[in-house]
Amino acid sequence: MNYRFLIQYDGSRYSGWQKQGNTQKTIQGKIESVLEKMTGTPVELQASGRTDAGVHAYGQVANAHFKTELSFEEIRDYLNRYLPEDIAVLEVVSAHPRFHSRLNASAKTYRYRIRTSPVKDVFSRKYACSMAGPFDADRMRRAAALLTGTHDFTSFCGNRRMKKSAVRTIYDIHIEETKDELVMWFTGDGFLQNMVRILAGTLAETGLGKRTPESMTDILEAKNRDAAGITMPAHGLALMQADYEKKI
Amino acid sequence: MNYRFLIQYDGSRYSGWQKQGNTQKTIQGKIESVLEKMTGTPVELQASGRTDAGVHAYGQVANAHFKTELSFEEIRDYLNRYLPEDIAVLEVVSAHPRFHSRLNASAKTYRYRIRTSPVKDVFSRKYACSMAGPFDADRMRRAAALLTGTHDFTSFCGNRRMKKSAVRTIYDIHIEETKDELVMWFTGDGFLQNMVRILAGTLAETGLGKRTPESMTDILEAKNRDAAGITMPAHGLALMQADYEKKI
Repeated sequence: MNYRFLIQYDGSRYSGWQKQGNTQKTIQGKIESVLEKMTGTPVELQASGRTDAGVHAYGQVANAHFKTELSFEEIRDYLNRYLPEDIAVLEVVSAHPRFHSRLNASAKTYRYRIRTSPVKDVFSRKYACSMAGPFDADRMRRAAALLTGTHDFTSFCGNRRMKKSAVRTIYDIHIEETKDELVMWFTGDGFLQNMVRILAGTLAETGLGKRTPESMTDILEAKNRDAAGITMPAHGLALMQADYEKKI
Repeated sequence: MNYRFLIQYDGSRYSGWQKQGNTQKTIQGKIESVLEKMTGTPVELQASGRTDAGVHAYGQVANAHFKTELSFEEIRDYLNRYLPEDIAVLEVVSAHPRFHSRLNASAKTYRYRIRTSPVKDVFSRKYACSMAGPFDADRMRRAAALLTGTHDFTSFCGNRRMKKSAVRTIYDIHIEETKDELVMWFTGDGFLQNMVRILAGTLAETGLGKRTPESMTDILEAKNRDAAGITMPAHGLALMQADYEKKI
């Protein structure tokens, strides 16, 4: 059967989602090894997106084909019993035989948290990146509007040697301000390597007055990574949700 | 000058607030050593309450007498720069010369979080204790009402050899339910060793139907630790606030 998983993890201790040989600590590797223990055979797990080292997930979706006598709840509880405490399986359901969590994803939503308060906060230290403001959120919103839509995002891609198309569609960028934080939400059909962190860095620089909102158009047209802003640190980023068309 | 500090910490890695020789890792020890580095002389820090190993704080209050040319903000920033990432100083202000954060505290508020959902949650794993329900919160509220007020809390004291008075006043116990958690808030004039964790354990057992709300009166009258419920694990507990009369 093709099983679909809803997965949560604190990425702090991991080299990211994707398995890399035997030496690296990855989320995929940890879950696959418990699935292999459970089923007695190797299992390959596909995720909606391969999060980088240090990036968290509240709603990662993955799928895997395997056989078991266990119910959905029993699979979930088995996984949670044997997984480390910083990886959790929230839900296990059956999926269409051809369902593929990455190829069929219609949208993914990421959140980037910047702590703007000059005062330390121990409880968010692993989940928000500290950056001194003040940030002009309205400038950031005007810049975000120019980045929304279908564009070639080569300037926002961390992999300079990427040969495939860098055209992606951003459906929405939402910027929230609280007393101590600036939170950016990004929803799109797919994101290039480091793309959300570079978007967040470029928008943060715009909020600080280092760039104009209008310059976003020039950055996109440059098709050059050097035209965009900094890559924000991984720990402020989290994959919140993956969406799928109903038909599959 | 007598300085008053508002302090936050993630207690996971520590043997509690109070300094214990040189070998143990304590919050008090960490902060005092940075204050000594800052002032050039040993500084003694008094806290509103000595939290146990593994207990967190969102609003611990402490005070210390020392001399420095630094402003309040400079002291705060100096401490935050040299303290480990799981201890933060939120605020530094001046206090009355005779202000003592423990002796003058008029009330302290603690929170105990129980995660009731059968599904693991990685982001609250260090701050909430998992316990299978269902809990009847109304039973717990009826029990809480009998514990509120001025009583001899010997039955709720973890130190069986305590010789001082165990009479304390609980001003309020508030029980909140969310989809995944049961959260208990305790406000009182002072708490004995492990008292909040034993109160939380006794109320949890009442919520599970193992004790009746009415039996709280018998437990108090027994003046015997064995009459009360389990001591809940430390990591679900946090000191939220310490209050002081205005006059000092």
